[in-house]
Amino acid sequence: MKELERHECCEGEVRFLTFPSQALGLPTKLGLFLPKAALEGKKVPVVYALAGLTCTQETFLIKANAVRYAAEHGLALVTPDTSPRGAQVAAEDEAYDLGTGAGFYVDATAQPWAAHYRMWSYVGQELPGVLEAAFPLDGERCGIMGHSMGGMGALAFGLRNPRKWKTVSAFAPICAPARVPWGQKVTETYFGGDEAQWRHYDPCLLLTEGYRTAGKILVDQGLKDEFLPILCPDLLEQAAREAGQPLELRRHKLYDHSYWFVQSFIASQILHHARGLTSQPGG
Amino acid sequence: MKELERHECCEGEVRFLTFPSQALGLPTKLGLFLPKAALEGKKVPVVYALAGLTCTQETFLIKANAVRYAAEHGLALVTPDTSPRGAQVAAEDEAYDLGTGAGFYVDATAQPWAAHYRMWSYVGQELPGVLEAAFPLDGERCGIMGHSMGGMGALAFGLRNPRKWKTVSAFAPICAPARVPWGQKVTETYFGGDEAQWRHYDPCLLLTEGYRTAGKILVDQGLKDEFLPILCPDLLEQAAREAGQPLELRRHKLYDHSYWFVQSFIASQILHHARGLTSQPGG
Repeated sequence: MKELERHECCEGEVRFLTFPSQALGLPTKLGLFLPKAALEGKKVPVVYALAGLTCTQETFLIKANAVRYAAEHGLALVTPDTSPRGAQVAAEDEAYDLGTGAGFYVDATAQPWAAHYRMWSYVGQELPGVLEAAFPLDGERCGIMGHSMGGMGALAFGLRNPRKWKTVSAFAPICAPARVPWGQKVTETYFGGDEAQWRHYDPCLLLTEGYRTAGKILVDQGLKDEFLPILCPDLLEQAAREAGQPLELRRHKLYDHSYWFVQSFIASQILHHARGLTSQPGG
Repeated sequence: MKELERHECCEGEVRFLTFPSQALGLPTKLGLFLPKAALEGKKVPVVYALAGLTCTQETFLIKANAVRYAAEHGLALVTPDTSPRGAQVAAEDEAYDLGTGAGFYVDATAQPWAAHYRMWSYVGQELPGVLEAAFPLDGERCGIMGHSMGGMGALAFGLRNPRKWKTVSAFAPICAPARVPWGQKVTETYFGGDEAQWRHYDPCLLLTEGYRTAGKILVDQGLKDEFLPILCPDLLEQAAREAGQPLELRRHKLYDHSYWFVQSFIASQILHHARGLTSQPGG
């Protein structure tokens, strides 16, 4: 694990790191905020924040205005990249919604993508192990959140592995990827046409198949979001209701899909994780 | 005034605008945050935030985490670009600290720069007039702040025109530009070698020449700032002391020059402006 940058911020430290990921078969970068207590060696709860299409490990830390709230509640933040970089797959850099910057937090099953496009294994398994070995992050108190494509990932990780991800939230998540153009592109390329792969990753399908998380899922969604018709929050709400999965979907009349929206509600999403990860038993 | 972007944020709106600046002789872009009260047509106090070398009209709004505090206190924010763009001066894009992104908030006196590099006139005179005619911004309640090169600009505007700029603050400002390499480059190019031009812009020289602002100037400075030796905060402190200018210079042991530092102390700098611009007389 090599450190690329380190900055004092809100009495903690923002760091950018790189290491050779086995899951991705490539070096990858990530951002990490360690609150003051972690710098003093205390194990702290941690929230993974997954960014959306075209973003990098820097985007969420720079644009979401989350650091001060993480600092206030003593939470660490982890911000992975959104895809492998430099996999040398032809067409990797041709579209904003496929390849570089668009890993969709899935494990590709079709070649040539399957060799490196394994963000599910990287974020869900390898990365927590690597980080918990290197930093005072409490592997028993992990939350996950994300924006757009990253919101989809956060919901999927949370539903598939509720023992690891105790708290879950999302901003404007892609709720039913299997049904929308972004997901159809993923099906054709990463999955070689095998639609059934989506049963591992599509939040609505996961709910229908019986996956649950114990806590309430918190989702914020702007109603002026330019992608609203293909984000499908109504389908998520319906699937959660039918599945008995507690979900608070907050609709915000005037907000769009940008980080200007994310930063407007970040305080209460961070609070959602802080309450779930730091409260006493029963609290 | 043409609108390029508009985003709801913290119950107000972030807008990016462009208009043909007469002072610059070119179209220029700026950012504007209007708090809720302004959207309802009420005249609000406004803080101009000047960014540093290599930055644009977007940088401060994205990276400083200032919007939520401006919203909370009912302040508008204005973020000008840091130089003219497209002046077609040879060598304009060769260095990070001269030309594009490096207007230094001065009026160049030497050709070919003098035709367009007139950020002093643009930010100090033209822009407030244009904005106060177009938006419910209270021209009698204006504050100014900035980072690095922009901190220098904020101090210079505040000292030269205290009737306009009622409150003044800066993050890691260039305090004595006439004495450091950045400023010497400006002397050679924008001023054609005429060092005396700095008497209009150098915060330390302005204090020595008798310029004052009524309120206390607030400055935050990190002591791990990689530019500390050429920012010269000690000289500012000395000049202010000798001039009887109230100055609070807060030194922060572990912080560097980045916006990770800026965001760590933005809440109290915005509060400084809010108190100065919104309090009752004597408050």
